[in-house]
Amino acid sequence: MAAVVAVENLNPKVLKCEYAVRGEIVIHAQRLQQQLQTQPGSLPFDEILYCNIGNPQSLGQQPVTFFREVLALSDHPCLLEKEETKSLFSADAISRAKEILAAIPGRATGAYSHSQGIKGLRDAIAAGIASRDGFPANADDIFVTDGASPGVHMMMQLLIRNEKDGILCPIPQYPLYSASIALHGGTLVPYYLDEKTGWGLEISELKKQLEDARSKGIDVRALVVINPGNPTGQVLAEDNQCDIVKFCKNEGLVLLADEVYQENIYVDDKKFNSFKKITRSLGYGEDDLPLVSFQSVSKGYYGECGKRGGYFEITGFSAPVREQIYKIASVNLCSNITGQILASLIMNPPKVGDESYASYRAEKDGILQSMARRAKALEDAFNNLEGISCNKAEGAMYLFPQIHLPQKAIEAAKAAKKAPDAFYALRLLESTGIVLVPGSGFGQVPGTWHVRCTILPQEDKIPAVITRFKAFHEAFMAEFRD
Amino acid sequence: MAAVVAVENLNPKVLKCEYAVRGEIVIHAQRLQQQLQTQPGSLPFDEILYCNIGNPQSLGQQPVTFFREVLALSDHPCLLEKEETKSLFSADAISRAKEILAAIPGRATGAYSHSQGIKGLRDAIAAGIASRDGFPANADDIFVTDGASPGVHMMMQLLIRNEKDGILCPIPQYPLYSASIALHGGTLVPYYLDEKTGWGLEISELKKQLEDARSKGIDVRALVVINPGNPTGQVLAEDNQCDIVKFCKNEGLVLLADEVYQENIYVDDKKFNSFKKITRSLGYGEDDLPLVSFQSVSKGYYGECGKRGGYFEITGFSAPVREQIYKIASVNLCSNITGQILASLIMNPPKVGDESYASYRAEKDGILQSMARRAKALEDAFNNLEGISCNKAEGAMYLFPQIHLPQKAIEAAKAAKKAPDAFYALRLLESTGIVLVPGSGFGQVPGTWHVRCTILPQEDKIPAVITRFKAFHEAFMAEFRD
Repeated sequence: MAAVVAVENLNPKVLKCEYAVRGEIVIHAQRLQQQLQTQPGSLPFDEILYCNIGNPQSLGQQPVTFFREVLALSDHPCLLEKEETKSLFSADAISRAKEILAAIPGRATGAYSHSQGIKGLRDAIAAGIASRDGFPANADDIFVTDGASPGVHMMMQLLIRNEKDGILCPIPQYPLYSASIALHGGTLVPYYLDEKTGWGLEISELKKQLEDARSKGIDVRALVVINPGNPTGQVLAEDNQCDIVKFCKNEGLVLLADEVYQENIYVDDKKFNSFKKITRSLGYGEDDLPLVSFQSVSKGYYGECGKRGGYFEITGFSAPVREQIYKIASVNLCSNITGQILASLIMNPPKVGDESYASYRAEKDGILQSMARRAKALEDAFNNLEGISCNKAEGAMYLFPQIHLPQKAIEAAKAAKKAPDAFYALRLLESTGIVLVPGSGFGQVPGTWHVRCTILPQEDKIPAVITRFKAFHEAFMAEFRD
Repeated sequence: MAAVVAVENLNPKVLKCEYAVRGEIVIHAQRLQQQLQTQPGSLPFDEILYCNIGNPQSLGQQPVTFFREVLALSDHPCLLEKEETKSLFSADAISRAKEILAAIPGRATGAYSHSQGIKGLRDAIAAGIASRDGFPANADDIFVTDGASPGVHMMMQLLIRNEKDGILCPIPQYPLYSASIALHGGTLVPYYLDEKTGWGLEISELKKQLEDARSKGIDVRALVVINPGNPTGQVLAEDNQCDIVKFCKNEGLVLLADEVYQENIYVDDKKFNSFKKITRSLGYGEDDLPLVSFQSVSKGYYGECGKRGGYFEITGFSAPVREQIYKIASVNLCSNITGQILASLIMNPPKVGDESYASYRAEKDGILQSMARRAKALEDAFNNLEGISCNKAEGAMYLFPQIHLPQKAIEAAKAAKKAPDAFYALRLLESTGIVLVPGSGFGQVPGTWHVRCTILPQEDKIPAVITRFKAFHEAFMAEFRD
């Protein structure tokens, strides 16, 4: 009898799906980390430095105190009745926790909520969006989710009927999109970001790829835009965003706007504009454009990845379609309440005059300013190395340098049955403990090779990262230089 | 131009999916609840009583103190360094929080974890399983998830290739299964539980339905068993479980064991046996049977639905298949850390000798004994009414009484374009505020009509629930008696 469950009889969509940021290199890194524990000194480094994933707190970033105070009080509301609590928690954290509990039916932080999330928390999120954009936002348009990823899956599940449905995605892209499209059986329609113009997003390229896909019988349903970019770190200019919105409207595409890095901008000449704001500024209303904006508590200065909080805001969808979205949300009952509370806090942080404001502001600015310095230091270091060119990290948490690999290295990779960038990243890991993700996991122009590196090692470690990386790269080039 | 997104061009699998426990009746109840707020006194009742869903804390059940103490300390670890903390928290909650933080790399409760969950917490869960079953359990077999539902979806996603793949499910069933099978495009192969023998699960019925499905070209891949039963409340006998395991082994089926009600047993002559224990007791090992056991922090005496914690344990899967399961888990990065911590706590609660043990035990026993009394009171009340028969609630959180509806009521339902049980539940809601789910949402023998009612209203409200229900039912029967 054939095996009951074997790779051969699994869902082929699962087999097709790839997810590089937790792929082969990372699994190998975990093995090396175990080896360091069981046989200290057996490797040429004494720690693994995970630069593969935007996971700030795993590398020592501290959570924002006010947020954690409110979470602790919400988890154990009895504390609110105790005298000692006043000396342990800030006054505004106490009053915020009371407000939040009052907004939760029965003050029950352990109950399933409305499938879109607790109404009072969605009100706070909507108010935060309105204040950010200067245009109204509605709690009924908000779906609170366990991080941004489940929202992306829900939209793919809704839109993709079969392999003839296509989703326009940037290349390079964050592999959640390729993985989700594969799992739902659709077709990823790539559009290339232009590395020469700082990962520019050209409307002519969108048009070309859309027409090409349509000529092959693909029904292109949506356009994914990641702004600020992941893995590419660019921040879109307002003009460019206007053109993208008009393109979606003219071509009848849903605009899926990944805006999880909205707080992460490191250059003075760029600012974040939500696609909702752009759309409304152009005078487009509910009937003009279906738009979904994704936000997460995992990124920004908060970096609360493990709390799995996030939301998406939908506008421009008809009532019957919204009912279907609600139904999908309801099959998983609701997202976790701790994440829901946190999503409301990041969209409504302490304000001037609140007891926590000064310390909150100092923590936030400290984190964001340090990220900007780290991004610049790594960018400069990459650009100072032979055969590496790296665009400016305007935003997000990543650099995506191009490694101009010598032909000999490409041949050595071929002999080792690896993609050249994976070969490079594996050698880097084995000699330095630094974990990067090969560009092939995100997509790149054929024949070019990149790696993605987060800017998240703590600032005191950056010089060592640069030194280790430089030594590795110089040795690598010495070994393989043509 | 056709609408960019309309119901007609959505994924038909989404349209096909139904989820009754948050369906039409519940949406109507939410509207009535708003009406009560805006126009008090406008309805014949003054509160909505949600008996539609196993959501204990929404109806006033208090969380277990020890669990919440540990969560608060883990959310805000600075508390562990403060003197006042000792007077606010129990000593074992403090030491447990310290242990948990020590098990988390970098003590970072805000970082993404390993995609299966934090290793130290999985060790605690595995130890809890081993102590429950008397057979070893392994942290590598545990996948910690946001409640049980995502694990069920992952297994359906893995196993279902197309509509020719079938999953054997009980009827009545918890609609997560029908919804997930529909979303993944498979075929639900029903097997009927026998209401006359207390919702007995007969092997002959399994065989008959399996053969019938196979004769139609369905490749039946797995058997879902919910024990204790939802919505039916029965607890399987050990002999029966042995037969089920042998059936799966002989027929080459994956056994998907929904064991989320493992702590909810209310009769002295039944006890919970995990399918893992049964399998091992029969001498079956890793090579004999692929088995998945689902557990959740939402049920039991803990009832922490909003925390979205849970896990599944897999045994009998080959390494390449496990890699695919890991890959699916990794696409969503990890489950929320608060839920992960709670999953470890419910599988490793305070022990004799711990400071919290007495209060923990009193809270646990108080909740479970009260549930048993409530189940009995509701069961007796149903059985005392004309035209209602209700099996014993041996376990879980539900009663599933059969309503022998008069022909006139069935015709009135038809005229109102409703299923007769939905008609009954809607009338009940509109006259009493009590929210039940019609049996058609779970499946039932054609021509029979049921409702599912949770046993979760707090004990002091049970007499009023019974009085209101009785008055409604008698009036309904008077109106429609043949």
